[in-house]
Amino acid sequence: MKTTELLGEVAPDLARLERYMADYLENPEPVLKDASLHPLQAGGKRLRPALVFLAAKFHRYELEKLMPVAAGVEFMHMATLVHDDVIDQASTRRGWPTVNSRWGNKVSVLVGDHLFATAVDIIAKSSSNETIRLLAKCINEVVRGEIQQTNAAWRLDLTQDQYIERIGLKTASFFGACCHVGARISGAPDELSHQLERFGFEVGVAFQMMDDVLDINGETRDTGKPVGGDIQSGVLTLPVIYALRHSADRDHLAGLINSRAFNNGQLQDALEVVRKSGGVDYTLDLASQYVDQAKARLRDLPDHPAKETLNNIADFMANRPV
Amino acid sequence: MKTTELLGEVAPDLARLERYMADYLENPEPVLKDASLHPLQAGGKRLRPALVFLAAKFHRYELEKLMPVAAGVEFMHMATLVHDDVIDQASTRRGWPTVNSRWGNKVSVLVGDHLFATAVDIIAKSSSNETIRLLAKCINEVVRGEIQQTNAAWRLDLTQDQYIERIGLKTASFFGACCHVGARISGAPDELSHQLERFGFEVGVAFQMMDDVLDINGETRDTGKPVGGDIQSGVLTLPVIYALRHSADRDHLAGLINSRAFNNGQLQDALEVVRKSGGVDYTLDLASQYVDQAKARLRDLPDHPAKETLNNIADFMANRPV
Repeated sequence: MKTTELLGEVAPDLARLERYMADYLENPEPVLKDASLHPLQAGGKRLRPALVFLAAKFHRYELEKLMPVAAGVEFMHMATLVHDDVIDQASTRRGWPTVNSRWGNKVSVLVGDHLFATAVDIIAKSSSNETIRLLAKCINEVVRGEIQQTNAAWRLDLTQDQYIERIGLKTASFFGACCHVGARISGAPDELSHQLERFGFEVGVAFQMMDDVLDINGETRDTGKPVGGDIQSGVLTLPVIYALRHSADRDHLAGLINSRAFNNGQLQDALEVVRKSGGVDYTLDLASQYVDQAKARLRDLPDHPAKETLNNIADFMANRPV
Repeated sequence: MKTTELLGEVAPDLARLERYMADYLENPEPVLKDASLHPLQAGGKRLRPALVFLAAKFHRYELEKLMPVAAGVEFMHMATLVHDDVIDQASTRRGWPTVNSRWGNKVSVLVGDHLFATAVDIIAKSSSNETIRLLAKCINEVVRGEIQQTNAAWRLDLTQDQYIERIGLKTASFFGACCHVGARISGAPDELSHQLERFGFEVGVAFQMMDDVLDINGETRDTGKPVGGDIQSGVLTLPVIYALRHSADRDHLAGLINSRAFNNGQLQDALEVVRKSGGVDYTLDLASQYVDQAKARLRDLPDHPAKETLNNIADFMANRPV
């Protein structure tokens, strides 16, 4: 399923969003303009803005209020990606050169700050302080998740619960917040906003699990990221945690991870142990459970075509090829 | 003059601010808490919060409204410093180890993001969207100033006007905004808020010029930063720009800068040319003119002891030892 198909009725507003975001990055400093537009031009599914739009469909859908927030959450997301790529010294993302590989770390750190400040400015332009605080707190959760990930690097005793807490913080909370603010802006009642927030959170957990699975068995040409990048940098995800408990070759895998450096042969070796362990299927099963939970949240929502679209997004999370 | 003396009547509220900020950085993740508290514990003059407080003294001074904003501007300032130190690979600031030297670049980038998001959260808690937007725009100006500085590195044709534009963006706008938001929160009329904003801006220009002079003729033990750090990294400040135009040894200086790398002897050589050129006195003179302009802004303010304190702060800018 193509993204425009998947996102159904909000696809036209997402198309408008591209223009709106680009206009907002106009800047008298050419380097700042070019380097900020770069991650926007790299594309992306715009899932977070889509969730803002879709969550607002069940009450008053006012595009002029929603557009700045949809742009704001995407700018915030872009800011975290640009800073991530500095931290990870990544040279490509989605098959595109990263900002740091084109303009260096200095400009990248500044571009991330610029995108974040622009997000705050644009959101404050049209929204209540509640929306701003909710999203600022979300950024703090993303940071907290990243710090947990750093602390847990190479730790063979990492548990599934710790993994789920981490991906909740670094990915799922933000998805939840996008749904939450969309619903609030539309004037939805508290209970509905809460259900949509939970939907976003659960869908976000499944999204991150799928991302982690793709790092084990995806193809670089599909994901735009080198396969095995997580394990190579010590980030142990659920398929690996599972393999470290249940694989017949778990001691071999632990030994490879303990060495803290992989040549290509060793990396393929480690990935093979994980693939054979059943850890991928286990993770996909768990992701499906989160998707089912998320879909159940939609049951009591008012009847509206957006319900079907949200349903399709949830399904997509556990089945996406990229 | 000691800082507490200088800051007069707002010294007690600044003391309360220290506690308030530390409490706000409580965090379940120990690394995030420690690394965020670290730049706070490094101290600092808290000039920006002091300006927020002082600018509010001429109308309704409501500490419970001002405190979150005073904390917010200092967190924002700290965020830019932490990211600066990553960019510059600095190992000390104010004589303290930097966050990056203690926890590495990854944690530092995240801590900067965390401080910025915390600032936004805390400001949105108590203030209008206007305040948030004003400060977010300011962060964008700081970024723009930093980008200009990067683009102008090692450029012998840098002009005084370009230098003044740059320090306006990277330092003075923020000082101006602190005065502006303090005045607005107190309910001051537009004209008064505007005069105070200009005061802050002009004082900020003088502050940065003084900072740049100290990098030429300060003592490392006073400033906590290695002397000559600017010129060594290609950042040409007004004393250097002056020397490149007016020194008898300007060709020698240009040659040293053109080599783009200094050993210690060459650095001392370059600093000596700048010191002898009269560039330091020229810069101090210009800073004094900005201070005088700033002080003239205070004339029409209502009579209040805060006026004297602001006057003293302006004087301090052009005479501070550190």
